[in-house]
Amino acid sequence: MNGEANLVTALFVLELIGVVAFAVAGALKAIQREMDIFGILVLAAITALGGGIIRDLLANRFPVSLDEPVYFAVAIIGGLLAAVGAGFFTRYQYWLKIFDALGLAVFAVLGANVALNLNLNVLSVLLFGLLTGIGGGVVRDLLANEVPLVLRQEVYALAALIGITIQWSLVRLDVPLIPAALIGALLIFLIRLAAIRWNLNLPRVK
Amino acid sequence: MNGEANLVTALFVLELIGVVAFAVAGALKAIQREMDIFGILVLAAITALGGGIIRDLLANRFPVSLDEPVYFAVAIIGGLLAAVGAGFFTRYQYWLKIFDALGLAVFAVLGANVALNLNLNVLSVLLFGLLTGIGGGVVRDLLANEVPLVLRQEVYALAALIGITIQWSLVRLDVPLIPAALIGALLIFLIRLAAIRWNLNLPRVK
Amino acid sequence: MNGEANLVTALFVLELIGVVAFAVAGALKAIQREMDIFGILVLAAITALGGGIIRDLLANRFPVSLDEPVYFAVAIIGGLLAAVGAGFFTRYQYWLKIFDALGLAVFAVLGANVALNLNLNVLSVLLFGLLTGIGGGVVRDLLANEVPLVLRQEVYALAALIGITIQWSLVRLDVPLIPAALIGALLIFLIRLAAIRWNLNLPRVK
Repeated sequence: MNGEANLVTALFVLELIGVVAFAVAGALKAIQREMDIFGILVLAAITALGGGIIRDLLANRFPVSLDEPVYFAVAIIGGLLAAVGAGFFTRYQYWLKIFDALGLAVFAVLGANVALNLNLNVLSVLLFGLLTGIGGGVVRDLLANEVPLVLRQEVYALAALIGITIQWSLVRLDVPLIPAALIGALLIFLIRLAAIRWNLNLPRVK
Repeated sequence: MNGEANLVTALFVLELIGVVAFAVAGALKAIQREMDIFGILVLAAITALGGGIIRDLLANRFPVSLDEPVYFAVAIIGGLLAAVGAGFFTRYQYWLKIFDALGLAVFAVLGANVALNLNLNVLSVLLFGLLTGIGGGVVRDLLANEVPLVLRQEVYALAALIGITIQWSLVRLDVPLIPAALIGALLIFLIRLAAIRWNLNLPRVK
Repeated sequence: MNGEANLVTALFVLELIGVVAFAVAGALKAIQREMDIFGILVLAAITALGGGIIRDLLANRFPVSLDEPVYFAVAIIGGLLAAVGAGFFTRYQYWLKIFDALGLAVFAVLGANVALNLNLNVLSVLLFGLLTGIGGGVVRDLLANEVPLVLRQEVYALAALIGITIQWSLVRLDVPLIPAALIGALLIFLIRLAAIRWNLNLPRVK
């Protein structure tokens, strides 16, 4: 009972971290594109809630962020903070990628967690995590009329798949869901940071 | 019983108005982009039905426009009328914004109405209305490979949020659903017209 | 009982053909845009699974490709084959359209088949088939930041609608579902091939 409540709380806090991260990334993209303050907040909100809504639609359940106002409120606050603090960011594209990496990491493991709860197999866990993780960033970049980061970036989908695979392996080894998710998310975030820092690239087809 | 039937009829008529408005807006965008007649009808249909389908997916129910043929038929008729009458429009972008404003107004209050029926709180009513209202135009502009109006335009999301807030307030004051929705829609439409007419802009972040 | 099993098997095989076709088309688009190997596989997977996921979301059921790993695995294999074999394709855009035509044909009749099973009327069968058929290609082109083929191409939506209409007519004439679907798909594929070969165009609005 208590463990169950802790699990729900931990997932909730983790999701709020992802919501803030994607809200900031969405707001920075909007600022970069010289949108007005409502465009900034709309892009922040859609980016922040997009991943979770896609996850809930895929799982065939009512999107939690349309029922619980806290997600929307946190997304708006994240977007406002980014708009207010934008003067402090001189390298929008760099910080956008950092916050995007945090959002990717959180939503990838949250999506994978849904599939783990449904007792789906490993490929489905990967796909669920991947689609949920990249969802927010894809929606943001589509709305900004750009090719999504996941299709342009050095080691993006790969980072998510590695982290989800580790998360799945840990759960199979009887590690509880939350530590497994946290380790997976940390791994994804660190791989993305390394890829951004050293501009790692995968081979291209000529 | 009678009131219930009137409610359903009124919502149905309102939705058809929104479908025609978005169908015309979608067709005008396709004509502007020099698409062929089927491209025009496809963009008209997807724009016209997109908002409603998004609303129904969010509410986790079967999309009404995939079950009842009248929506599709009305969308196609709207698209055909726009294609036939396109010679009379000299300022596509201007008329596109006018019809888009009508579609936005109608679908915003219809989406909010779903959340009101589900007894969701005010932030969820706002989000439901906003996503349903902007859905058609976002899909249209994405397919035409442009940044959606909602992210570029003076007072677009803001108009929707003001109208939905008034609609929600009226319902809380025991005004019946239909008058509340009509007042909200009228308000959104008028604010958008004023914004288009005087080219109102919100502050941008520098 | 046996007929039922045959039906399920036939639909399954048909869907795998569509998955491979769209995976190759997605991979070719990614190669054309000089994406890295993970971008290629992500675009292949999303294109290949996109149509089926849209169909399942519309039918309000859990996406089969997120439950059964075989679809994802086949999509990845298709993408890898396209990446490995890309040296043999000199005219990416041409082959992309050929594989896209096959995917369109398969998913259009599979989507229509869902509506036929739900006993929906003819307009809904058309809409279901159309949205499922064009879904994969639309998602692919949106992610590559292009106007979707369906909106640019000579005889694309029209091909799908003709094939679905024939499929629906055959079912109404008591032809079993599978032969009707196969004939419809063959027709769509041939019309698209003819349109690509002779560059058929529909009238444009001036």
